Amino acid sequence: MKRNILLTVAYDGTGFSGWQRQPNRTTVQGALESALSLVCGTAITVNGASRTDAGVHAYGQRANFELESAIPVDKLALAVNNRLSSGGKGKPVTGPIRIQKAEEVPLDFHARFDAKGKKYIYKIKNDTAADLFCRNYYYQILKPLDIDAMNAAARFVVGEHDFKCFQAAGGQEKETTVRRIFSSKVCRREQDIIIEITGDGFLYNMVRIITGTLVEVGKGKRVPGEIASVIESKDRRNAGHTAPPQGLYLAEVYYENGGL
Amino acid sequence: MKRNILLTVAYDGTGFSGWQRQPNRTTVQGALESALSLVCGTAITVNGASRTDAGVHAYGQRANFELESAIPVDKLALAVNNRLSSGGKGKPVTGPIRIQKAEEVPLDFHARFDAKGKKYIYKIKNDTAADLFCRNYYYQILKPLDIDAMNAAARFVVGEHDFKCFQAAGGQEKETTVRRIFSSKVCRREQDIIIEITGDGFLYNMVRIITGTLVEVGKGKRVPGEIASVIESKDRRNAGHTAPPQGLYLAEVYYENGGL
Repeated sequence: MKRNILLTVAYDGTGFSGWQRQPNRTTVQGALESALSLVCGTAITVNGASRTDAGVHAYGQRANFELESAIPVDKLALAVNNRLSSGGKGKPVTGPIRIQKAEEVPLDFHARFDAKGKKYIYKIKNDTAADLFCRNYYYQILKPLDIDAMNAAARFVVGEHDFKCFQAAGGQEKETTVRRIFSSKVCRREQDIIIEITGDGFLYNMVRIITGTLVEVGKGKRVPGEIASVIESKDRRNAGHTAPPQGLYLAEVYYENGGL
Repeated sequence: MKRNILLTVAYDGTGFSGWQRQPNRTTVQGALESALSLVCGTAITVNGASRTDAGVHAYGQRANFELESAIPVDKLALAVNNRLSSGGKGKPVTGPIRIQKAEEVPLDFHARFDAKGKKYIYKIKNDTAADLFCRNYYYQILKPLDIDAMNAAARFVVGEHDFKCFQAAGGQEKETTVRRIFSSKVCRREQDIIIEITGDGFLYNMVRIITGTLVEVGKGKRVPGEIASVIESKDRRNAGHTAPPQGLYLAEVYYENGGL
């Protein structure tokens, strides 16, 4: 009996060379597949919705895989999570990767090809002193940022645009660089600045380059309206710096009827 | 010109084999001494106030060392912090170890021998779901804990007692096991439970064993008053489990006129 299982996976990207399996590297996909293979008793390969970079985190990565076993999905998740944590009395109750949900989906479902959109969150710590416990989870900026200006700038990326200016070298240039951004906003929670961007798809490093550009607006080096002409120019050199990976979180992947 | 420099050091203990220098291990003392030696141009050895275990963190470890150079203390701290962080545009503004303060002290001052007391903080995350981003910084307990009971229990450790019951094997048994605890309290901040203990000295694993015992009170497995008889028994087997290292933070070290 062939089944198709869809996982919702959270991970701390610190210490992983990104999502995608690579020989001789510790990757999230590699570690997840190893644990799944051990629990299922057969070699498992997963299709991830997004290939997050080294140091990037996820609250809601999605990945599907084919399975011949009849193991209940809840038991599967529990067994894999136990394998992924160091376990034992007083040890952390979770490892750096955690299956949040496992569900059975139609056989033709594919986590990447069927995705209708994604939400990314980017976290900035905007405090006057460096906090070493935040270094792997935030972009720390000590100079005060103007959030209203950043939020005004963020609105210019909403809509369908050719976002070539926000694509890093290494993106697949033969494909279209047109994407639709559904929402883009910046808000403050105490000393944290949270950027939330939802769209039907993202170019390589797009959220990190948008964030770098917004940070330059927040520092007063650019005015919010500049974003429109940066997009129009379709030239990467006109956009800001690439914000570091450790502030980026893949928050959600949306599917048909999936709440977008 | 011989000078004696006292450092206040914060560190994220994740990934370090504790404070104390050891051959072929990455330790906090080892990494700090390497950076200091490079900046000062001569081999530096530091005296740390406390030998924290692997995985234990610090907000305010203290360490002193002798220096022949005339480099201003602020410049020294800055240069060492730059060495200890990966640096560069968009990279974390701090590494896992950070000198918070450097000051010149009398030549006969010794960070360990002159310490009059220490404050430790132990952090418990008491939420219904495991949070993988907290796994290296908290003891995560999913079952609700009774904080009032824990706080009542915590009060029994205040005062001068023979704390042999809270000493792990590996503690130096020839020395006295009498210590004075100045304050011991448990409070809640949202889903966090914070245990704060200040005393003139601590036995090996003492705070972690007290915490494990308080957790058992919080779970209703022990009543608060039991702590008095556990202490009186002077028997490690009567105390609770040793709470894991990742929730423990060396918060402050006190010296003469140092605000104890």
